Amino acid sequence: MKKPPRTLTAKRTFSQNIGLVRRIKNLSQEAIGEKADLHRTYIGQIERGEVTPTLDAAERVAHALGLELWEVLQPDFSVDALVGQERKQ
Amino acid sequence: MKKPPRTLTAKRTFSQNIGLVRRIKNLSQEAIGEKADLHRTYIGQIERGEVTPTLDAAERVAHALGLELWEVLQPDFSVDALVGQERKQ
Repeated sequence: MKKPPRTLTAKRTFSQNIGLVRRIKNLSQEAIGEKADLHRTYIGQIERGEVTPTLDAAERVAHALGLELWEVLQPDFSVDALVGQERKQ
Repeated sequence: MKKPPRTLTAKRTFSQNIGLVRRIKNLSQEAIGEKADLHRTYIGQIERGEVTPTLDAAERVAHALGLELWEVLQPDFSVDALVGQERKQ
């Protein structure tokens, strides 16, 4: 009766949304890296799904984009949410 | 004009909520570790904030508790949400 483990999707959702928001905001990987205090190549690796960041590193990247980590991890995260976020700030 | 970096809260929110849900569900660290394929001592370390899990490890723990990672990371996550989740399943 043991259920099969659910597929892990957080890493992928995170990397996709991070890349999406970064491009929408027209920011370079270098700019995000500087804000998040992470190397720009690491930002690239995150976006390509080559590395799995810790909660801390992931949160720093989200913050560098003006977002909270839980927001970026939502499967239904959309640009609309981003626009809402911008208005609140 | 450089804004100070926001405080990192995801790790703490995660560890607190994980511990809370685990106790509400009356599950042992060992049971969660087994479900998440992580050592029970690692579950304890996460709950005490001694380690910072990767997105993958954090998601496996959340899934072991029947939740999604983004849900557990929400600062306003509450037992009410958990009850709602249970009903949906």
